[in-house]
Amino acid sequence: MATRYIEIRQGVLSKNDHLAVGLRGRFQQAQLLALNFVSSPGTGKTAFLERMMRDMRAAGHPVAALVGDVQTDNDAKRLARSGAPVRQIVTDGMCHLEVQMVTSHLDDWGLDLNTLEFFFIENVGNLVCPTWYDLGEDLRVVLLSVTEGEDKPLKYPPMFNSADVAVITKMDLAGPCEFDRELAHTNIQSVRPGMRIFETSAKTGAGIPEFIDFLISERKRLRSV
Amino acid sequence: MATRYIEIRQGVLSKNDHLAVGLRGRFQQAQLLALNFVSSPGTGKTAFLERMMRDMRAAGHPVAALVGDVQTDNDAKRLARSGAPVRQIVTDGMCHLEVQMVTSHLDDWGLDLNTLEFFFIENVGNLVCPTWYDLGEDLRVVLLSVTEGEDKPLKYPPMFNSADVAVITKMDLAGPCEFDRELAHTNIQSVRPGMRIFETSAKTGAGIPEFIDFLISERKRLRSV
Repeated sequence: MATRYIEIRQGVLSKNDHLAVGLRGRFQQAQLLALNFVSSPGTGKTAFLERMMRDMRAAGHPVAALVGDVQTDNDAKRLARSGAPVRQIVTDGMCHLEVQMVTSHLDDWGLDLNTLEFFFIENVGNLVCPTWYDLGEDLRVVLLSVTEGEDKPLKYPPMFNSADVAVITKMDLAGPCEFDRELAHTNIQSVRPGMRIFETSAKTGAGIPEFIDFLISERKRLRSV
Repeated sequence: MATRYIEIRQGVLSKNDHLAVGLRGRFQQAQLLALNFVSSPGTGKTAFLERMMRDMRAAGHPVAALVGDVQTDNDAKRLARSGAPVRQIVTDGMCHLEVQMVTSHLDDWGLDLNTLEFFFIENVGNLVCPTWYDLGEDLRVVLLSVTEGEDKPLKYPPMFNSADVAVITKMDLAGPCEFDRELAHTNIQSVRPGMRIFETSAKTGAGIPEFIDFLISERKRLRSV
């Protein structure tokens, strides 16, 4: 199944993929680690990122974020509370981000990538379309909240299959939602065997330090810093 | 804003819209009311429909449902527990339903539409792409769960603007999620002034009878039965 999705991506999206290679090169040259965060609308990408970015900055790791939304700059305003450089892409009806949107905002922004250790892209809330668009990221992080149902990996296998890491959000609501932790893990592993899973809560902070440690070690591994 | 979205829909999707006119005619001729249910993945469309369909059948209203998913027939199996005729459309990677999928499944199914009062289409979980595809429905119902954040209407205005009715789901979780009911209503109304809103819980059954009464009265109004 994995092979099939990759083939579709290569065939249809050659222009985006071609541009993604260039952007990935820029990220590598700047020695930063780039992440693409994808999920349903309402999974809690922004709350997770806000908490994580605040804690990373407090620990001396420079970060920045680019936030995609169909409409409004609410999320950029929320993330900016972390104190990090943040910029909003309003897609005006479009259901996913493409490389060209990222690069044109980066160029216009004038942000010096060399000053960063981590660069976060928060994609449009959508478990289907962003699957097919490589944004030059090093890691694609798919988020899934305990409120959404444990079957999401089975219903959106291309997205979960294309991701490198899974983050379960809103663990503080696991009780009232009767979240079946084991079933969620089994379903994720059935679609993407071996995928690393983090259980987190932006409200209590649970799991955030572990995820930050993971990012730091991934940057060391992939950038040899 | 409403006008703008309608213009885009008319320009780009004339083939789908043309077919939708035909399907709408079939629904009208059969004197059934057709509904298109749209939401994020994990909002609880299936749980809401399962409860509603069971209660409608118990009250002597014949219903059937067509369920769209990127992958798996889990939702059709769940809805079939209501005892109603149910069929699954697996879109195999596609992010929305189109009229052609609905009509080809209807033709293949051999379901006699004249025996039905209500026909439900559960769209793929996606708050962006299904916006632009008229499925011949009489009413488009957008669902929003208390776990997703009150800002969804502001972030996905085309979808909320294109819908006729809003259903808030998982009201039983409003407490633990610190759901701001007034803010959610205000945001929905700002995008689609005057939209009817139902607050429901598939778990407790709250709000379901009111929604069923609404559907019955809408069928009377639109089908003169």
